[in-house]
Amino acid sequence: MIVVLKTGTPAEEITRLSKELSDTWKVKVEKSIGKHKVVLGMIGETATLDRLQIQEFSPWIEQVLRVEKPFKRVSREFRHGEASEVIVSTPSGHVSFGEHHPIVVVAGPCSVENETMIVETAKRVKTAGAKFLRGGAYKPRTSPYAFQGYGESALDLLAAAREATGLGIITELMDAADLPAVARVADIIQIGARNMHNFSLLKKVGAQDKPVLLKRGMSATIDEWLMAAEYILASGNPNVILCERGIRTFDGKYARNTLDLSVLPVLRSLTHLPIMIDPSHGTGRSEYVPPMAMAAIAAGTDALMIEVHPNPAKALSDGPQSLTPDKFDRLVQDMSVIGKVVNRWSTQTSQTPELLHI
Amino acid sequence: MIVVLKTGTPAEEITRLSKELSDTWKVKVEKSIGKHKVVLGMIGETATLDRLQIQEFSPWIEQVLRVEKPFKRVSREFRHGEASEVIVSTPSGHVSFGEHHPIVVVAGPCSVENETMIVETAKRVKTAGAKFLRGGAYKPRTSPYAFQGYGESALDLLAAAREATGLGIITELMDAADLPAVARVADIIQIGARNMHNFSLLKKVGAQDKPVLLKRGMSATIDEWLMAAEYILASGNPNVILCERGIRTFDGKYARNTLDLSVLPVLRSLTHLPIMIDPSHGTGRSEYVPPMAMAAIAAGTDALMIEVHPNPAKALSDGPQSLTPDKFDRLVQDMSVIGKVVNRWSTQTSQTPELLHI
Amino acid sequence: MIVVLKTGTPAEEITRLSKELSDTWKVKVEKSIGKHKVVLGMIGETATLDRLQIQEFSPWIEQVLRVEKPFKRVSREFRHGEASEVIVSTPSGHVSFGEHHPIVVVAGPCSVENETMIVETAKRVKTAGAKFLRGGAYKPRTSPYAFQGYGESALDLLAAAREATGLGIITELMDAADLPAVARVADIIQIGARNMHNFSLLKKVGAQDKPVLLKRGMSATIDEWLMAAEYILASGNPNVILCERGIRTFDGKYARNTLDLSVLPVLRSLTHLPIMIDPSHGTGRSEYVPPMAMAAIAAGTDALMIEVHPNPAKALSDGPQSLTPDKFDRLVQDMSVIGKVVNRWSTQTSQTPELLHI
Amino acid sequence: MIVVLKTGTPAEEITRLSKELSDTWKVKVEKSIGKHKVVLGMIGETATLDRLQIQEFSPWIEQVLRVEKPFKRVSREFRHGEASEVIVSTPSGHVSFGEHHPIVVVAGPCSVENETMIVETAKRVKTAGAKFLRGGAYKPRTSPYAFQGYGESALDLLAAAREATGLGIITELMDAADLPAVARVADIIQIGARNMHNFSLLKKVGAQDKPVLLKRGMSATIDEWLMAAEYILASGNPNVILCERGIRTFDGKYARNTLDLSVLPVLRSLTHLPIMIDPSHGTGRSEYVPPMAMAAIAAGTDALMIEVHPNPAKALSDGPQSLTPDKFDRLVQDMSVIGKVVNRWSTQTSQTPELLHI
Repeated sequence: MIVVLKTGTPAEEITRLSKELSDTWKVKVEKSIGKHKVVLGMIGETATLDRLQIQEFSPWIEQVLRVEKPFKRVSREFRHGEASEVIVSTPSGHVSFGEHHPIVVVAGPCSVENETMIVETAKRVKTAGAKFLRGGAYKPRTSPYAFQGYGESALDLLAAAREATGLGIITELMDAADLPAVARVADIIQIGARNMHNFSLLKKVGAQDKPVLLKRGMSATIDEWLMAAEYILASGNPNVILCERGIRTFDGKYARNTLDLSVLPVLRSLTHLPIMIDPSHGTGRSEYVPPMAMAAIAAGTDALMIEVHPNPAKALSDGPQSLTPDKFDRLVQDMSVIGKVVNRWSTQTSQTPELLHI
Repeated sequence: MIVVLKTGTPAEEITRLSKELSDTWKVKVEKSIGKHKVVLGMIGETATLDRLQIQEFSPWIEQVLRVEKPFKRVSREFRHGEASEVIVSTPSGHVSFGEHHPIVVVAGPCSVENETMIVETAKRVKTAGAKFLRGGAYKPRTSPYAFQGYGESALDLLAAAREATGLGIITELMDAADLPAVARVADIIQIGARNMHNFSLLKKVGAQDKPVLLKRGMSATIDEWLMAAEYILASGNPNVILCERGIRTFDGKYARNTLDLSVLPVLRSLTHLPIMIDPSHGTGRSEYVPPMAMAAIAAGTDALMIEVHPNPAKALSDGPQSLTPDKFDRLVQDMSVIGKVVNRWSTQTSQTPELLHI
Repeated sequence: MIVVLKTGTPAEEITRLSKELSDTWKVKVEKSIGKHKVVLGMIGETATLDRLQIQEFSPWIEQVLRVEKPFKRVSREFRHGEASEVIVSTPSGHVSFGEHHPIVVVAGPCSVENETMIVETAKRVKTAGAKFLRGGAYKPRTSPYAFQGYGESALDLLAAAREATGLGIITELMDAADLPAVARVADIIQIGARNMHNFSLLKKVGAQDKPVLLKRGMSATIDEWLMAAEYILASGNPNVILCERGIRTFDGKYARNTLDLSVLPVLRSLTHLPIMIDPSHGTGRSEYVPPMAMAAIAAGTDALMIEVHPNPAKALSDGPQSLTPDKFDRLVQDMSVIGKVVNRWSTQTSQTPELLHI
Repeated sequence: MIVVLKTGTPAEEITRLSKELSDTWKVKVEKSIGKHKVVLGMIGETATLDRLQIQEFSPWIEQVLRVEKPFKRVSREFRHGEASEVIVSTPSGHVSFGEHHPIVVVAGPCSVENETMIVETAKRVKTAGAKFLRGGAYKPRTSPYAFQGYGESALDLLAAAREATGLGIITELMDAADLPAVARVADIIQIGARNMHNFSLLKKVGAQDKPVLLKRGMSATIDEWLMAAEYILASGNPNVILCERGIRTFDGKYARNTLDLSVLPVLRSLTHLPIMIDPSHGTGRSEYVPPMAMAAIAAGTDALMIEVHPNPAKALSDGPQSLTPDKFDRLVQDMSVIGKVVNRWSTQTSQTPELLHI
């Protein structure tokens, strides 16, 4: 932490403040006298200190600048620069998420509607190449009058689809009370964008064993998102996958959110955790999904989550952003072409990768 | 709902779509043929329909425009244009929040730290004119390593402060599991900005009796905020107070958030619910609090929430935005001057209001 | 400037970099060795250095933190903590803008439409208490097909209104080629939000004598806005008034922009320049204007700009945000009540100010 | 345009308003009576009407919804769904921008610094595969004390680099007074993000012949950006290329801006104009540039603008976002791999495109 003092801070105040900072936080304080400003450097275990709290130690403090990153267990340094892999057990075997593994495709409808629908969709997306089925049993909806998901009975249908296809299941948890029921069916538990700052829920999924998919909050900064993941890791669960799903900006007229693909290089340098991109929620319209899915692969994503619905026009939620199974088939074919040239596609067998520089 | 079709939509598609919309949603569909576009008006109970779902009925739909507001019970029309009042029982009697009542002042520290601190602060803010004590027992913190509140033992200290002063208590609920404990002590239960979209929690505070203070989410639109309130009302609890606490914008260097005071006239025209302004979180720095508190009164707020801490430099959270009790005394005096001329101050007895036009 | 090095930076690189920074920028470089990081402080004339440029001196640099503010002539320190006053000559004498002067009211239509309209409006707003008439001759319009202002002929009409009423004139300059014509009529030249980053135009109004009203760009940070003012001062013109007119955020459904009133305390601490608030553009709807005008006065504004149109329904631009002259009369009366209690209203003669603390 | 009336609008007001709208705008007005609301549809030439102006026709109007798009000449419909191509003459022949042409690569330094530097860079980027050299002679800088570009003498150096390499030249115009000098050297004239709303300048580049590269404003919506292009087309110049360079959002800590790649599918459906992506300004850090450049190609861009500097550590502006020539060589190789599989790379000769679906 670096403490910048206002111009004209009296010498005795500098001495007093240095001593108080040093005594309170058990750090060494070094003084540096500039042309206009005096700056105090706090040296020691400062990563978890609160910038705002330090500021109140003296009215002469102009600003407090953080030198250390605020997160620890999720940081790339914590694993000495190595990527982590999240290995998920599914009925068809283990699936690994991580930058040294092929891209994992997750697909399925926004909501689970009935058995035929979910089992049929599961079969179609499995044939196309997906490893996981997504489907909402509990749905966060802006309106209390909108369809809220079929709850536990939808979980049973997901279990049936899992059984029928061998796909892993990803489904959202909104309420800690539903954790046992969700954990019974889900191979990965999703925390949605609206609950990224629900710290109670983060602690609870951190205290159980299933891997967690943590979606970025609608207006969460990169640091806040990583701190939310830090909550889960700090509670004991190291298996977290980060999922970008579009942020809120000043323009939502055409694309409903702004899909921030720069998180791929940014997160790569900051954290060891695997990264998933959700172009369906990220844009809100099915015709924008294929180009953004392709872009995500070219930019280095570890996984993709894509909404597929057998009949989007009848979907009980989020219809406009869903692909039909036929369109999804074609998209996966297209993705495989890009996926192969960046050497991240699983079906590749004897391929010689052309691309080495990135 | 108004459905705008793309240029060149075939006549048979228009006929098919009109029929399908009409059959599915039990509405009358009226066709209007413009120079370039055909527009279908859906007439009937359309307030709770999902704009996005309709869009998927045909690839020829260009956009769906909502004519009705998406909320119902919170709307001003629901009470035939009248403001509602939220009457809260406290040890010192009933306190009413609403546009026909004097401004209610809520004050206290961000977190409850110890008994002396909270009781002393309570006494000071009561003397200054506050009707409610705020104080966090459970704190939502960005970092898992930051102070998370003292939990249940802090609730006991709040009860002691309530007993000692007769002030009502406002404290935040983060986890439904803590609802019984919080409801035992709180006269008003606060839902924080980070949980405004935690729909499970909204339903739970909607299903109990204590009044609810609903803070606006960091990047919640006016409509989303009102829909969150609608969740509470739809679950059975009509006693909701809306609290603006600053939104997230592109600039957080000086003021941490952007306090959006225009919610005062905007909400007034849309909803009957009372409105509170929190200039402390809304700006993040104690020196910005007084001018914004004054502004809120001039713009017509029903209540103010202000952070006061006996020693902000030692505060366990949010120190920089807290006022000292002395500064709070002076601020309340200043507020009373503005409050009186807008005829919203409780100490006024025989005052002839000068201001009538707004 | 403070240069934070990455963990593990080799000792020889630290030495090399210190030397290069010192040689290039003629500054003293002090090294501070922390637990995880090494930090270099650059001491000397660093205010105008470019943070990003420094970053490129070594791949081992993690971040560069600015300690000095980036602006100089506009800073409060530049005038030793004193506010400046901008004195504007009008046909009725000098009008002073500044925190030790009464609030100045500016009013008038968005666009100048015809002589009767502008002269009548001028008379009405003068009677109500305005000191300046605003009116656009050149209008920045999003659409090339929208009314672009009557240009030079509108300037003549403004001159006629000035002659008829003695009001000062404020009108916008969009194109440097129009500067002579605008400067002939305007007592204050306005630079609109869309041109706040038009540095060529800023230099040109900086190189002439008329006072300049500098509107904040739609998404300009406080620092960028002050740097735009710095362009004008650095070009030789010290007479700049800053005008907040609403920023762009994620929600424009009800209020078109978000009026950021916290600029009042923020700018007050950073700059000596006078501050104006424009609640008409700031909210975009006439019914929101009065509460926000009142709020601006309570929060300490030096001036207000309010759109008034004799018949808003027929206005050639920005009708919905204009008040009728009658509504403006009532608003000024209301404003005077608040203005008097904060001791910033000119009609006060023997008033004893009640409010002293802010 | 669709005019939604408030609940309870009197019948005579509906009649009066319908007549007034019809008389004023020469449109047919159709009435549609819903359960709660009455809606008036305005039928005729409504594309260029002002939504806000209509709203003021009656206090009973709740909202005005636009059905038509606000732009015309830039719209895809204007060319009957066909893409346009912008053909630029360079010393090495014509280069075509458009969705049926190979991706055009533009590269070069932020600022022109000296002859050796610009000529050497030009040679390197030409060898790597660029068709255009970018380089600033006039630089928009936030600070008046930062390097502002070498102006006309830099234009001469660009002319020398053009002569030496045969590359086309793209350089920014900030001031209409410099148009003759810039147009003498530039093959494409750039309008920067900060001047996207400088309508005077847009009209002037619209009234001359050189193709224009129009960068998106920092917080410009898609509609505003297209309207800015409409200014140029409406002034007579059809040769406009749109360039996305990152938008301003709530988080600028790591990536300086948020590169909005969804503009690729969004603009494709709205306009016939070619699209360029600038990942250098779009992210602000050279290490983020390669993945975003790759992503842009996969998502369908027509052109890329990439900053290259022989020695970024010494760059007079924007150093941190520049690649070295060596890194640029490797990036172009990588881009060619993706470019070939999406069938948009010029060096392909006998390639059979694998990708057909998007």
